[in-house]
Amino acid sequence: MKFKVMTLFPEMILNGLHTSIIGKAVDNNIISIEAVNIRDYSSDKHKHVDDYPYGGGAGMVMSAEPVYNCYMDICSNENTRVVYLTPTGHTFNQEMAKEFAKEDELIFLCGHYEGIDERVIEKIVTDKISIGDYVLSGGELASMVMIDAIARMVPGVLTNDESGCEESFENNLLEYPQYTRPRVWQGMEVPEVLLGGHHANISKWRKEESIKRTMKYRPDLLEKAQLSDREKQFLEKYKINL
Amino acid sequence: MKFKVMTLFPEMILNGLHTSIIGKAVDNNIISIEAVNIRDYSSDKHKHVDDYPYGGGAGMVMSAEPVYNCYMDICSNENTRVVYLTPTGHTFNQEMAKEFAKEDELIFLCGHYEGIDERVIEKIVTDKISIGDYVLSGGELASMVMIDAIARMVPGVLTNDESGCEESFENNLLEYPQYTRPRVWQGMEVPEVLLGGHHANISKWRKEESIKRTMKYRPDLLEKAQLSDREKQFLEKYKINL
Repeated sequence: MKFKVMTLFPEMILNGLHTSIIGKAVDNNIISIEAVNIRDYSSDKHKHVDDYPYGGGAGMVMSAEPVYNCYMDICSNENTRVVYLTPTGHTFNQEMAKEFAKEDELIFLCGHYEGIDERVIEKIVTDKISIGDYVLSGGELASMVMIDAIARMVPGVLTNDESGCEESFENNLLEYPQYTRPRVWQGMEVPEVLLGGHHANISKWRKEESIKRTMKYRPDLLEKAQLSDREKQFLEKYKINL
Repeated sequence: MKFKVMTLFPEMILNGLHTSIIGKAVDNNIISIEAVNIRDYSSDKHKHVDDYPYGGGAGMVMSAEPVYNCYMDICSNENTRVVYLTPTGHTFNQEMAKEFAKEDELIFLCGHYEGIDERVIEKIVTDKISIGDYVLSGGELASMVMIDAIARMVPGVLTNDESGCEESFENNLLEYPQYTRPRVWQGMEVPEVLLGGHHANISKWRKEESIKRTMKYRPDLLEKAQLSDREKQFLEKYKINL
């Protein structure tokens, strides 16, 4: 899968995605990540890419032309989806990551300043997406977040050992707590059940811990979680004792 | 304000936050960003930081001891809040960014693999936070996102010209579209109202565009938005015509 990023800070994208799992996937040619500088497509002799907004207001707006020229240069297939990172968009989630991972190629457009001239957005963008309800200095970190989450869903990027976490998230339950050696650390012991090797008990304990955590941090997810009758009973009891 | 990040990939943090607004704030000594490698605190001669999970399951778990030693080394004040980036946490938003921006110092803990031994999390972490409902390879990108959003709220980081976007977000309405020169681009004209210089009309048009966009992309926000009676009427009419 090919990721192409249109940005004013290409080195930020490239430096931030060459480590760990994503870096390995690039090295193994399972994915490729290209970052292109929009400034290189400015026809202005000072390489300006922004101008004052029509109608007044604070800040500068990125001009349509350099963005469009950049897009025309890197887009080899007009069916390729173009994602614009903006607080003015649908909120990204794991389901969308799985959907995007089916594409052969994705283009990301990163804005800066007060945004980008709406006309070029209308012309080239297929998906306006926000990674959350907060404001960032530009689309770069947001596109890196999306590329990480999407790339993990591309077949071959995660080994079997690495793929547990996503599955858990899909059940709308948060992950259970994890423990590793030593058995006693600073006086704190690993929960007894994890030491016994009784798989059914371990599995039951983990599921209940997941339910408790989801109740504590994300009760909104719990409504969508698929629970057995026994697990529903556990949840009701836990709620009463809260 | 001081940001300290405990991570296995310190260069990723440092490379990703030295550009644009955040980079300027560091250069001007308004904020500082330090990234410390947890691996440097492993007492293992091979510098291992992870081990198999108790109770079995895929993947590896980060051990408590190196994380704790790292924390003890960089923490100069035991009241400093320690944020652990995890899908198992409260969802980050702009209001939290404003709250965190009041702190003098913040420590971030970035996990990798299947997570971190729960005991060290219990011991040092004050805030478990998720940046959204998707799974990332580690806490690094998530901590960078949080640092960007929080740093922007630290007095002196944004100039007046740059501070418009956050305000808009706080009203629970998405930003209106922006336009800059040329007036006609690829046959598409800038909306007439923005050219006239009639401030009340421009302001009314922008507010209505914000309402339309919020309705389209984030109807959930609209319930919390403060609208005048006239704006409520506009919204009702717009809904009917959808």
